[in-house]
Amino acid sequence: MLAEIKGLNEECGVFGVWGHPDASQITYYGLHSLQHRGQEGTGMVVTDGKKLKGKKGEGLVNEVFSAEDINELNGKAAIGHVRYSTAGGGGYENVQPLLFHFQSGSMGLCHNGNLINATALRNQLEGQGSIFQTSSDTEVLAHLIRRGGYASFKDRVKYALSMLKGAYAFLVMTETELMVALDPNGMRPLSLGKIGDAYVVASETCAFDIVGAQFIRDVEPGELLIIDDNGVRSEMFAMASNIAMCTMEYIYFSRPDSNINGINVHTARKNLGKQLAFEFPIEADVVTGVPDSGTSVAIGYAEAAGIPYEMGLIKNRYVGRTFIKPSQSLREQGVKMKLSPVRGVVEGKRVVMVDDSIVRGTTSRRIVNMLKEAGATEVHVLISSPPIQHPCFYGIDTSTKEELIAANYSIEEIRQMIGADSLSFLSVEGTVKAIGRKEVGDTCGQCLACFTGKYPTEIYPSSIDNQVPTC
Amino acid sequence: MLAEIKGLNEECGVFGVWGHPDASQITYYGLHSLQHRGQEGTGMVVTDGKKLKGKKGEGLVNEVFSAEDINELNGKAAIGHVRYSTAGGGGYENVQPLLFHFQSGSMGLCHNGNLINATALRNQLEGQGSIFQTSSDTEVLAHLIRRGGYASFKDRVKYALSMLKGAYAFLVMTETELMVALDPNGMRPLSLGKIGDAYVVASETCAFDIVGAQFIRDVEPGELLIIDDNGVRSEMFAMASNIAMCTMEYIYFSRPDSNINGINVHTARKNLGKQLAFEFPIEADVVTGVPDSGTSVAIGYAEAAGIPYEMGLIKNRYVGRTFIKPSQSLREQGVKMKLSPVRGVVEGKRVVMVDDSIVRGTTSRRIVNMLKEAGATEVHVLISSPPIQHPCFYGIDTSTKEELIAANYSIEEIRQMIGADSLSFLSVEGTVKAIGRKEVGDTCGQCLACFTGKYPTEIYPSSIDNQVPTC
Amino acid sequence: MLAEIKGLNEECGVFGVWGHPDASQITYYGLHSLQHRGQEGTGMVVTDGKKLKGKKGEGLVNEVFSAEDINELNGKAAIGHVRYSTAGGGGYENVQPLLFHFQSGSMGLCHNGNLINATALRNQLEGQGSIFQTSSDTEVLAHLIRRGGYASFKDRVKYALSMLKGAYAFLVMTETELMVALDPNGMRPLSLGKIGDAYVVASETCAFDIVGAQFIRDVEPGELLIIDDNGVRSEMFAMASNIAMCTMEYIYFSRPDSNINGINVHTARKNLGKQLAFEFPIEADVVTGVPDSGTSVAIGYAEAAGIPYEMGLIKNRYVGRTFIKPSQSLREQGVKMKLSPVRGVVEGKRVVMVDDSIVRGTTSRRIVNMLKEAGATEVHVLISSPPIQHPCFYGIDTSTKEELIAANYSIEEIRQMIGADSLSFLSVEGTVKAIGRKEVGDTCGQCLACFTGKYPTEIYPSSIDNQVPTC
Amino acid sequence: MLAEIKGLNEECGVFGVWGHPDASQITYYGLHSLQHRGQEGTGMVVTDGKKLKGKKGEGLVNEVFSAEDINELNGKAAIGHVRYSTAGGGGYENVQPLLFHFQSGSMGLCHNGNLINATALRNQLEGQGSIFQTSSDTEVLAHLIRRGGYASFKDRVKYALSMLKGAYAFLVMTETELMVALDPNGMRPLSLGKIGDAYVVASETCAFDIVGAQFIRDVEPGELLIIDDNGVRSEMFAMASNIAMCTMEYIYFSRPDSNINGINVHTARKNLGKQLAFEFPIEADVVTGVPDSGTSVAIGYAEAAGIPYEMGLIKNRYVGRTFIKPSQSLREQGVKMKLSPVRGVVEGKRVVMVDDSIVRGTTSRRIVNMLKEAGATEVHVLISSPPIQHPCFYGIDTSTKEELIAANYSIEEIRQMIGADSLSFLSVEGTVKAIGRKEVGDTCGQCLACFTGKYPTEIYPSSIDNQVPTC
Repeated sequence: MLAEIKGLNEECGVFGVWGHPDASQITYYGLHSLQHRGQEGTGMVVTDGKKLKGKKGEGLVNEVFSAEDINELNGKAAIGHVRYSTAGGGGYENVQPLLFHFQSGSMGLCHNGNLINATALRNQLEGQGSIFQTSSDTEVLAHLIRRGGYASFKDRVKYALSMLKGAYAFLVMTETELMVALDPNGMRPLSLGKIGDAYVVASETCAFDIVGAQFIRDVEPGELLIIDDNGVRSEMFAMASNIAMCTMEYIYFSRPDSNINGINVHTARKNLGKQLAFEFPIEADVVTGVPDSGTSVAIGYAEAAGIPYEMGLIKNRYVGRTFIKPSQSLREQGVKMKLSPVRGVVEGKRVVMVDDSIVRGTTSRRIVNMLKEAGATEVHVLISSPPIQHPCFYGIDTSTKEELIAANYSIEEIRQMIGADSLSFLSVEGTVKAIGRKEVGDTCGQCLACFTGKYPTEIYPSSIDNQVPTC
Repeated sequence: MLAEIKGLNEECGVFGVWGHPDASQITYYGLHSLQHRGQEGTGMVVTDGKKLKGKKGEGLVNEVFSAEDINELNGKAAIGHVRYSTAGGGGYENVQPLLFHFQSGSMGLCHNGNLINATALRNQLEGQGSIFQTSSDTEVLAHLIRRGGYASFKDRVKYALSMLKGAYAFLVMTETELMVALDPNGMRPLSLGKIGDAYVVASETCAFDIVGAQFIRDVEPGELLIIDDNGVRSEMFAMASNIAMCTMEYIYFSRPDSNINGINVHTARKNLGKQLAFEFPIEADVVTGVPDSGTSVAIGYAEAAGIPYEMGLIKNRYVGRTFIKPSQSLREQGVKMKLSPVRGVVEGKRVVMVDDSIVRGTTSRRIVNMLKEAGATEVHVLISSPPIQHPCFYGIDTSTKEELIAANYSIEEIRQMIGADSLSFLSVEGTVKAIGRKEVGDTCGQCLACFTGKYPTEIYPSSIDNQVPTC
Repeated sequence: MLAEIKGLNEECGVFGVWGHPDASQITYYGLHSLQHRGQEGTGMVVTDGKKLKGKKGEGLVNEVFSAEDINELNGKAAIGHVRYSTAGGGGYENVQPLLFHFQSGSMGLCHNGNLINATALRNQLEGQGSIFQTSSDTEVLAHLIRRGGYASFKDRVKYALSMLKGAYAFLVMTETELMVALDPNGMRPLSLGKIGDAYVVASETCAFDIVGAQFIRDVEPGELLIIDDNGVRSEMFAMASNIAMCTMEYIYFSRPDSNINGINVHTARKNLGKQLAFEFPIEADVVTGVPDSGTSVAIGYAEAAGIPYEMGLIKNRYVGRTFIKPSQSLREQGVKMKLSPVRGVVEGKRVVMVDDSIVRGTTSRRIVNMLKEAGATEVHVLISSPPIQHPCFYGIDTSTKEELIAANYSIEEIRQMIGADSLSFLSVEGTVKAIGRKEVGDTCGQCLACFTGKYPTEIYPSSIDNQVPTC
Repeated sequence: MLAEIKGLNEECGVFGVWGHPDASQITYYGLHSLQHRGQEGTGMVVTDGKKLKGKKGEGLVNEVFSAEDINELNGKAAIGHVRYSTAGGGGYENVQPLLFHFQSGSMGLCHNGNLINATALRNQLEGQGSIFQTSSDTEVLAHLIRRGGYASFKDRVKYALSMLKGAYAFLVMTETELMVALDPNGMRPLSLGKIGDAYVVASETCAFDIVGAQFIRDVEPGELLIIDDNGVRSEMFAMASNIAMCTMEYIYFSRPDSNINGINVHTARKNLGKQLAFEFPIEADVVTGVPDSGTSVAIGYAEAAGIPYEMGLIKNRYVGRTFIKPSQSLREQGVKMKLSPVRGVVEGKRVVMVDDSIVRGTTSRRIVNMLKEAGATEVHVLISSPPIQHPCFYGIDTSTKEELIAANYSIEEIRQMIGADSLSFLSVEGTVKAIGRKEVGDTCGQCLACFTGKYPTEIYPSSIDNQVPTC
């Protein structure tokens, strides 16, 4: 499954609110609902209209922020971030939002996604004497804004955004306004909502539900929203082109209760399951999914195929960085860390096991093995995405082709390697159809690059070195 | 749902292992898999055959134990405990296992469940000059063992157990043996397993799966297992009588991947759902469950009724004691703490919502309201247990009859109070049948006291004051 | 110096207050002023007249208690303790006060000193079925009180105290009274004071000065004070006999600003220095003292001898358990941990160095060496106590005779071992005279046992095993 | 005393080492010995010759660094800093050393002192697009180095230093060298030492003694030392001029065991005391000093005047930020936080009390009052410095003239305000003479600006706003 690559089962998330007296509390709950997008660190910057202050740290939202912190972070507006991993430079400094104080005012920034020309821009800026405090791509935007020659702050931001290439959702906040931007290809989800008179933005709509906000609309590719005490204004900083929402957002990253561009993620996954049932009917006794992303798919498959859905695998909710990992010898004796099989459900049964993807194959082999040891007589593996055969430059750490099992082996070879009785991947067409976006074009507005190798943007030479996401 | 009573959504859990070189690690993972039974505190006592040492604290397993702790707790045997709540006396002292050092040796103890004659025994012992360090029932057993006049340690333990009334699973460990006991009515789950040459015991079989142990058998009511370097011996300290496993273990407390007396909990819940479909067919568009316990039931209902199962409610995985609760005003604005509705799934739909129980009704009203605000056109509430009309004296904090909505109002009145379009409770007979135990008698070996008022044991006057569980 | 024996440079301290609305804060500052008597752990028990609650932990007073703790420990009375060392059983459990809850009420206890019949009493009590939670002598008193057959609580306490042998100051508090007792030989300092209408008791009078209390009088040997809302009453639980205040309290343990039985400690030390000048006139350029206890002595010597006093040694104020100790190789390269020489003061000078005692001699050798490396041309060592040749059974961990250098070597041999140009110990008579107590008898009410071998109490066989102080 | 101004009783301290395999440990002990110069925060940057890494935090040296940290900070060279206060911008960011990573290498910096043109330089640099992460003056130097057009790193550093005005000691470290600089007026102490083949630098020589290093020489005003694997080279970045060592370093800031420009601080203080005895002979019974800085002075006075020195005041060693401050009501009831009088020493006596300075007078009034309440019949206050009548722009937070009591009242008025029986300040000439530096000129190389108003450097308009020290 996609989670087997470190740094891949998380994707960073952003949240912002303007105009609410409990801005820091709202952001706390919003970030908590986005915790699945990043568990390595989190932070928040607030403004009371006069100054900016912030708190950040390594760990989960509830570990980093105490009740006292949230009280002290009083203000009418806030931006926050959950960070996915230490890859690409860990540590306190790289936790976002970044907060900069100038003699003329302050600025907080955060983003998710990946800039493919970050290294080039940073080289250029350091050559001009800029000092970077972090290895975060976010800081590149800050320097671009400060260097930009334009008179107004908004124009400086638009200039700086126009220099960036890649997939990103950016929040920039000053004492008097909150700016919200999405990359011109619209590769990351980003939505606008309302709670009373206050505006909220978030990487996923599930954050709106948890804070009681109403969804207004998605942010458009290339759009810059300027939110202040007068409301929301929209400008474009670049032409939208070649819309390419990351398909893995539907398949793996997002929470089932989120809607991405109007499509509910749980529903999309159920439809992927139904499409799998259409493409690959299997004779079996039970259907089970690898939690959490495989669960909805399995339910859809079960419904369409008329085979009972059962909880054949349970996820152990280990918590964060402090959890002790079993020693190698214990793992060999069968100590499980993340998943346990449910013997009472799979024993003596022919099992269909649904997972979101196969990257290196080691996890799939472990799960198949686990089910067989628990008594499954057959294990049929269904994958709710096509084979991943090409690296991602937009935020998923699929590194080099060497590591991608599907780039190097046939499906039959992979089946043997993971020990399954059968193995099937959903077709590219089936994936696009099941998700069901309405955009014009072959991909219906999806990024399918990791399956097809057709990248929605130009690829820079330096991208090769910079493919580790640094949201 | 049952979780709405504080101290009720957790039930304490015990774990023990004898004869494994990594006893403390094994216990760490075992306790982690039982974390759903108690999140307030946890502890462990280990022995290397020569002395006992321990660590305990308030918080989750991964918060209390560091890698360094687990290393220092080296030994060949261990017992551990997860504690459910501060009710009945919180604080460090009451976290289990208790560890006592005597000049003649040491003793560690832990238990889950509730003694109904604890107050009487404690009064008696204090009158004789005993000093209690905790308000835990566990300590009563310790004093009884030390006071007992018998020559052998085993006879002292048997004497002490014979004095206890109520529901309990007890672990007692010295430098040279591990003793395991279950109350004569068998009201709590407790199983024996094997991992290599080592023996393990646990409140639930899910702990065996996570540590790679094989299930051997359940501990019998009234049985005392003595485990030492020579293996396991079994003796009876009391006649088993009136077998009465807590029904709520199937319906609510246990993990779906556990088996209780041979019956898988997920399967039992699916069957409760099918039985609900049989007793209460409803015309609806989607079926959803209140996680976690309601999920399996909903899947069973959906399968039997031919209505699609959907994730209409998402549980927010807030973490433990440090999580900040939303202020009253934010809650009124719609900030959710535990559950979010999935608008994309319920909007415009007639929803069947399945929950495990109704205690005070406030949570049910909140959930129904949440679903309607998210666009559900109808909300039909199905409860996978009969109405709770009588207090529990065996470990569930259902306090006085006054608090039990079903003891004071008709089903129709409750339906109006929670704002549902319909409300149905599973019948007592249906509950027993769906769970499907094979024991002889009306109740098939289930405790149904909270539904029927027929208690499986004598009830002591002091039980009235002692109904707060103190495992 | 005496500090070179672990567990010896600290002696535990007790503090109590009754009748003050800020009892916990008062106790916090009182304990802080007694911190030099114990740095391993500290605790406090308070009462609001209805119930007892407490907090304790390992570490310094300011580490264990947060502002929040002190607020929560609201009440009108409190007792507190600072604990000296892990010798004799460390860990959270052994930190005092101990707090016991009975169904009939609660009781907090703490003490400093050492019981010489603790092991015998504990054996007896365990044989009767008592369970000890700690290895602290304090708990022995608790069990004796609970076991005692007397009707009134006061009589039970008096009975229990009458069973104890050794040196001790005890505080026992219930919801309604504070009891204060000193051993019949008066071997430990314990004083009574007043702050407004509230009464305070403390191991040293310096605690009165820091909290703004007025000294009333010392507690008498064998006296039991009962303090409650009606004031103070005095009763005797034993005849005072053979008064024997620990001489090391003047020489080493107590703070210079404390008065013990009417004699100021700094003044006593200055007089010890003057007596040294009288007994051992030395031709030298500067006089310096080993801080902290040697400083006053050195000032007295300098004044009497007409040689300038200088700060030739500086104490590095390392803080508690978390301070990292230098590795052996660094120590050999000259990294200092506790004391630094002041080169600018000793270079090229003949130095008189005053210390409180020599136990094993290793520290003295190190200091002499340090001064010579810093350029001292001669180092004359003067000790403000007679040679320690006999073990202490009353609370000082001077273990066995084997470890006492003065029990095994002549003064000339010790001089050579420590590398001093001369070495002199104060005479026993000079020590008694300089301190200047007015009690009748040879020792003027001092315990001189470690110098003379004449013990003020009977010595039990078990004392040999129990000489590790367990206050 | 000087300590009564927050931010004034601490002055920051720097420590560096190059060429030692235990560089981080050495720095740990060195910083600990400088702890009196700053207790708000501390940090360390180390290099192993290939990369730089660091750790910093708020709190004391032993709170910020764990043994694990020191192990991880392995390397051959290190720089470290202790920070005095939150004035001028607190928080984690401002703790030093600052550590910057560039794609071409890394750089660590720290300094103590105060730049009087920092605001002007910062304005200029921000105008050019630089982003400052901290409000620390240290960062100004970093940007100047990066902006400088010179080819070699050393020339960039010299250029940057030449832009700075004020009092400072700077350490700059890269992977390959350690650069050490002192301002051209030599206003702060900074010394060079050797430990084996390794070089060390420190704000005070007491740090050399604690790590076993040998003093080589003081760093010269305007000098830049370049230390690398080839040894030490010296260059000048500016002409030394108008040497003006802060007089308060002798009187108040430094540890008594340090030597500043060859003069021992304890000795200088004793001489100040002797000079006071010469200028102000007083008929009294005892002499006492306000610890710590007043102690040596009092000893000198006592020696010269032939009046006994006694410990009339004791300092309570409260520890750092976590210590709970007494409430106002408790303070009024006499709870002491920092100083306690020693009743046994002052009762019934005519007392000479020696302190280092009077700033606002409130502390002096409190101490005089405390001594009188403890029974002193007369209290004569002697101050070991002239009246402070002018603000300091070089690092001492004496703010505006309005706050300086001696700038607004006559000595007789101050005497009445503090309730003393007499009050005398040392003369300017006496101060210079007692310290006894050999430099040519009226001030003998001392800065006397706060007494005389004659500033050793040009004063910039912006200094007025920037007089809060920001080391």
